[in-house]
Amino acid sequence: MRQVGSTLWPKLRAVQVYGANTGVGKTVVSTLLCKALRRRLPDFNVHYLKPISTGPLDEADNRHLSRFSDNITSKTLLQFDEPVSPHIAARSAKEPIDDRSIIARVYDEIHSYANDQDAVAVVETAGGVLSPAPSGSVQADLYRTLRLPALLVGDHRLGGIGSTISSWESLHLRGYDVGNVLLFGESYYDNYTYLKDYFAERGIPTLSLPPPPDQAATLEEDEKAMLQYYDATANHQSLSSVVSQIIDAHDSRLKRLTSLPERANDSIWHPFMQHTERNKQNILAIDSAYGDFFQTYSAASTPTSKDQNILNPAFDGSASWWTQGLGHGNPDLALVAAHAAGRYGHVMFASAAHEPAISLAERLLSGVENPRLTRCFYTDNGSTGMEVAVKMGLKAASKRYGWDSNTGDNVEILGLKGSYHGDTIGTMDCSDPSAYNKKVEWYQGRGHWFDFPTVKMTQGRWVVEAPGAEFENDFGARREFDSLDDIFALESRTSDAQKYEKYVRQTLEELTAQGRKFGALIMEPVILGAGGMLFADPLFQHTLARVAREILPDIYGSNAGAGDNLAWQGIPLLHDEVFTGLYRLGHFSSSSLVQIQPDISVHAKLLTGGLLPLCTTLASESIYEAFLSPEKSDALLHGHSYTAHAVGCEVANYSLDTMQKLDQEGAWSEYKKDWQGEGVIDTVSHALGVKAQKDKLWSMWSSSFVSTLSYHKNVESVFAIGSVLAISLKDPAGSGYTSTAGTGLRDALLRGKEGVEGVIHSRVLGNVLYLMASMTATKETLAEIERKVADAMK
Amino acid sequence: MRQVGSTLWPKLRAVQVYGANTGVGKTVVSTLLCKALRRRLPDFNVHYLKPISTGPLDEADNRHLSRFSDNITSKTLLQFDEPVSPHIAARSAKEPIDDRSIIARVYDEIHSYANDQDAVAVVETAGGVLSPAPSGSVQADLYRTLRLPALLVGDHRLGGIGSTISSWESLHLRGYDVGNVLLFGESYYDNYTYLKDYFAERGIPTLSLPPPPDQAATLEEDEKAMLQYYDATANHQSLSSVVSQIIDAHDSRLKRLTSLPERANDSIWHPFMQHTERNKQNILAIDSAYGDFFQTYSAASTPTSKDQNILNPAFDGSASWWTQGLGHGNPDLALVAAHAAGRYGHVMFASAAHEPAISLAERLLSGVENPRLTRCFYTDNGSTGMEVAVKMGLKAASKRYGWDSNTGDNVEILGLKGSYHGDTIGTMDCSDPSAYNKKVEWYQGRGHWFDFPTVKMTQGRWVVEAPGAEFENDFGARREFDSLDDIFALESRTSDAQKYEKYVRQTLEELTAQGRKFGALIMEPVILGAGGMLFADPLFQHTLARVAREILPDIYGSNAGAGDNLAWQGIPLLHDEVFTGLYRLGHFSSSSLVQIQPDISVHAKLLTGGLLPLCTTLASESIYEAFLSPEKSDALLHGHSYTAHAVGCEVANYSLDTMQKLDQEGAWSEYKKDWQGEGVIDTVSHALGVKAQKDKLWSMWSSSFVSTLSYHKNVESVFAIGSVLAISLKDPAGSGYTSTAGTGLRDALLRGKEGVEGVIHSRVLGNVLYLMASMTATKETLAEIERKVADAMK
Repeated sequence: MRQVGSTLWPKLRAVQVYGANTGVGKTVVSTLLCKALRRRLPDFNVHYLKPISTGPLDEADNRHLSRFSDNITSKTLLQFDEPVSPHIAARSAKEPIDDRSIIARVYDEIHSYANDQDAVAVVETAGGVLSPAPSGSVQADLYRTLRLPALLVGDHRLGGIGSTISSWESLHLRGYDVGNVLLFGESYYDNYTYLKDYFAERGIPTLSLPPPPDQAATLEEDEKAMLQYYDATANHQSLSSVVSQIIDAHDSRLKRLTSLPERANDSIWHPFMQHTERNKQNILAIDSAYGDFFQTYSAASTPTSKDQNILNPAFDGSASWWTQGLGHGNPDLALVAAHAAGRYGHVMFASAAHEPAISLAERLLSGVENPRLTRCFYTDNGSTGMEVAVKMGLKAASKRYGWDSNTGDNVEILGLKGSYHGDTIGTMDCSDPSAYNKKVEWYQGRGHWFDFPTVKMTQGRWVVEAPGAEFENDFGARREFDSLDDIFALESRTSDAQKYEKYVRQTLEELTAQGRKFGALIMEPVILGAGGMLFADPLFQHTLARVAREILPDIYGSNAGAGDNLAWQGIPLLHDEVFTGLYRLGHFSSSSLVQIQPDISVHAKLLTGGLLPLCTTLASESIYEAFLSPEKSDALLHGHSYTAHAVGCEVANYSLDTMQKLDQEGAWSEYKKDWQGEGVIDTVSHALGVKAQKDKLWSMWSSSFVSTLSYHKNVESVFAIGSVLAISLKDPAGSGYTSTAGTGLRDALLRGKEGVEGVIHSRVLGNVLYLMASMTATKETLAEIERKVADAMK
Repeated sequence: MRQVGSTLWPKLRAVQVYGANTGVGKTVVSTLLCKALRRRLPDFNVHYLKPISTGPLDEADNRHLSRFSDNITSKTLLQFDEPVSPHIAARSAKEPIDDRSIIARVYDEIHSYANDQDAVAVVETAGGVLSPAPSGSVQADLYRTLRLPALLVGDHRLGGIGSTISSWESLHLRGYDVGNVLLFGESYYDNYTYLKDYFAERGIPTLSLPPPPDQAATLEEDEKAMLQYYDATANHQSLSSVVSQIIDAHDSRLKRLTSLPERANDSIWHPFMQHTERNKQNILAIDSAYGDFFQTYSAASTPTSKDQNILNPAFDGSASWWTQGLGHGNPDLALVAAHAAGRYGHVMFASAAHEPAISLAERLLSGVENPRLTRCFYTDNGSTGMEVAVKMGLKAASKRYGWDSNTGDNVEILGLKGSYHGDTIGTMDCSDPSAYNKKVEWYQGRGHWFDFPTVKMTQGRWVVEAPGAEFENDFGARREFDSLDDIFALESRTSDAQKYEKYVRQTLEELTAQGRKFGALIMEPVILGAGGMLFADPLFQHTLARVAREILPDIYGSNAGAGDNLAWQGIPLLHDEVFTGLYRLGHFSSSSLVQIQPDISVHAKLLTGGLLPLCTTLASESIYEAFLSPEKSDALLHGHSYTAHAVGCEVANYSLDTMQKLDQEGAWSEYKKDWQGEGVIDTVSHALGVKAQKDKLWSMWSSSFVSTLSYHKNVESVFAIGSVLAISLKDPAGSGYTSTAGTGLRDALLRGKEGVEGVIHSRVLGNVLYLMASMTATKETLAEIERKVADAMK
């Protein structure tokens, strides 16, 4: 399937003509504009394109027969006779009318105008901005992929002020740039005067044109009158302004876009980057994004000919740093955000309540299906949410066990090696020393981190492996499994469980015997993300949590909470689901996969569907109660200015609701079938609490592709789960964050292949190249990405 | 001036009828709806209100004369004869046509319907959703204050699908709840079928009605036909559905709103709160917000009679935790956010560039007018931005001075006592021990914090005071000044400067003689916010920075950077402008007020105009260069998923642009005049760098009010600067964060005064009650707030 993207050819200026309503004169204005372009730009080619036309061909032709007389090309791609909305007219269509097919035809047509010759294309839409397209989507959504600069023909009639502004708002919130508003002057209602001022405040020139003559008695007279009108009006200074604006806007857009890498190089301090490696060649400019694709410009791959599109669609292979859920440029998300902004803006949350925040808290607390969790604390990102979580855990443990950091007690945390919880100092301290933190002045790892067995596929087999030969005694030798489901069937893996339990118990006894005090067990359930996409054996995580809960009460000398199924026992269990939760691994909560009910869990990234920052830290009542006291200073004195900002909460409500619907309504059933055949749900006994219904494991990446990759000569191992695919490449120099084994493949994917539209943007973590998709990515899109990856690895 | 707010009376259901365009049949639908209400709800009062009507009274009357025959009240508030848009018709108006006046009349009229009797009010708008109001604003903006539940009459004509959806989008992004779409059924275009499905996906029932008869030949026949139509159609099941929806939506809204405090009490862990003090009585429910006002419901002040509005407008006196800049529910901000969401969503920022982020970086770097600052690093909030800043400072200093924390060097920071930089562990460690941090397990203050003299007004005089008698030798005795400007005229205060310099020099020499290593001097310029609104003597901050820069190179043994005006010297100067910057104190940068060019500065809160979280850390080239190396692990390995999210950056660009325009175009000139008479600009020599133009000091709070407060018997001192007013109340038990001296006044302000519309929501910091406004608050609004504060203190 072709990946058509946004259009920007150096010598071709395109403008898409939208109408504020039907009957506002789009065709007349387009005709005038073409004629004005023709006269003012004698050296240019001028093209008129009407992708979709409804209404009898005769009438349109007769009325405007002469309009393209002088060296203007004119084309209609889809013609329907009935003078009704295209979605009705298209019922009898014989050609494909889905949006992608239409867009591909429009793209190819416009592409044919692009060459060494200066040119302008005027692309006229059908009906109003949101009139239905043949497929039933609306005009502005149909054409959004191309994101052509827009010209809005305003409505000069009674009521036209409102409909013109509303139409502009509909275009604007879909990410269009409207360069001009153009409408017929009309002295009685004088919409022009009002709109001119209104849009001037928004930086958009508004221009008026003389209205066309009233329809004459006969066709001949009418045609004559229109000819005269066109002839007289094509020189109108409003049109000259629009022509200049179209030329200038194109130049300025090109200049702004192509200068972005250099400007970024001058002014930006990028995250996670060694800037000695940075230059304007390797900064990717993103002009816009839609669905799973960025529209990109790279100074490193400047087009060699003028018919080569400056913009290149690049699959967003990191799901924009693991955040993307509902697709880029999603107009529904944009509207939800706008609604919350329009209803509240931000309203401070101290001692306050607003519907979006309360609903979201309730939705999450119920969605995770963990009866322990009863309280929701809001912050802005995973790192701050984890800071809050750690404060919660340490306080609860310290209070129960009588530890006092002010009198010298050093309270630490337990975790897994290679964990990552954020970049603020408090969360850095929760991870073992690594390339990320070891050179940070204030970093001090405060804990003990366990080695652990990992899950991967090699040579077509799922295996669980010890982290090294020295651990085979503790974790068992390499074991093969028929499926991921078998690995996650924790209750059936009794021999492994015994080994793990013995190891965990012994380690904890040794550590605590040294007097070490642990205030939280912190884990990323299933996958340790930034640590290098380490897929932990779920049985090990489960066993670690279970044993810690069991033995620490006695060791630390308090059985408070015993007998209360919902109170924390032994040590607060803290799950960092920032990356792994909320469907990233195909399930609402990733804790459910490892069959642990944490006492605290942190959720961000996908929470807002991939639009803006928000984080929630969920906690149990027994954690919450540790902060209750008559003293204000005993409270969790934490908060950010934009705590529970309404826009984020409302977007999150919408995103979770949408993803839950996708799940329930079977949007992923094809993926699930691919991974496990038909029946996908069964019920398992929840070892650490109540019974829970458990989905089996599945991925959006095809099982055959994953299997094929696992045999590849350069691939050490691979796994896929949910929307995540991770490929560990062999690196003779050793794996880890500083390995460069992945960069070759990453660069090849971004470069793409001559003649094939679209490339892949991906991120690497050392020798691991991973790919991720939004939760709305289609099977066709991902199949194409898989083909491209396979190609690049040949 | 009256503070009219949103409307919600228990027994009165109101619905506002908007049209997708002029001529879609709003009046016919409203008439039918009234008649249906009348029939279906015999025990209810039914009211029809047309606040603004244009067109000849006769015609409207004749055509619909009989519609209100049976026990329906009907009223028009403003009638204009000309059948044109109200903004044109109103040119000849004799009554006030500004939005506030009209809204007050509508409010009073609706209020007169509210009592013990069940009732419904149908309020019909004029023209389309965005048709101009008499004042020239648009309908949906005019009525936004009331935020009545909306019913949208769709357009059944050709093109009506698009105009109906666009109209809904315009309402939606202004924060309206649209309960129903209602339109005439029409078989040829059949807009209904399309719209029904479209809006069903968005949770909005769409219903169709039989179209009215065509206009008859004579007036009599026409009236007869319409009468028949009304009579036959008023029983239509679509109308029954709408009637039920109106009743149900009202009940459900009441229930949701009044349950919010309890639901919050059950599910939310609030920021900065001791929850033993929380109950559903003291959680404020915020239904919506507009301009400077929340629309609030409190279970503690449940209306005593049915004609008492459930909602109470409350002035947002903390500017929503210091964030608010351009007013709540600002439709322009909502649209800007939506545009960025529609164009990009979020696009990952690693090695990437997009226009909103690059433009914002350039805008900030140029706006602060500090030639040292060349690089912009993005994070999500002040706390994370400060974490980044500290990492920058410590690394730069450690590198230059050869300190290595891995081999035991303990690098600390310098600051002021009572500082506050955020709640993540790294930023907590930058503050001296206090009620905020002392009970946090992992807190460890890592620095030295200076005592400092403070600025305040007492008894009508501006004074600079030492923090206690024991410091009078170091800082000088209490000194009076004629104006704030005199205090900020640093160059003329030579004697103070000498005292401060001696103290700072001696302290630094003592500290460093102990071997202490300081990697950053961190200050909030002018005002230490969360520490208790401490107004630092700007000369002390200036002197501290200057002396540290001067003497530390020799002490630490490196003059690298000497001779380079833009390189950091002695110690990186780090300014936390999160609260004080971006016009909060009336100036783009608060660093300019203390005449320091920091090497690093952090900006958030007002950055996004008060909509959503975003933070920037600006740094100089010499700081940036400290991270350059061939090793990736030497880089600043920090980043958040939503780093430089496009929505935040675009909103920030718009907000800064708007505030800069407000400044340049004289929006605050009345405030400035009040504080300093006419000429407000002069040029001073910038002691630490190049020359800079310096605005004088001013506040949005009136100078007379501030002066009056300073004489009040319960007031220890007061100050105002920019939009900040801080009142230190006398507390025999001592001041500080745990003082409760402010809560009495806070509670009185929130309670309000019987018979006076609107209350004040404020926050206290111990014995300090502060007030803050958005940067668009009007003189009239603030004057009213001042009167209420004065009243409450009587």
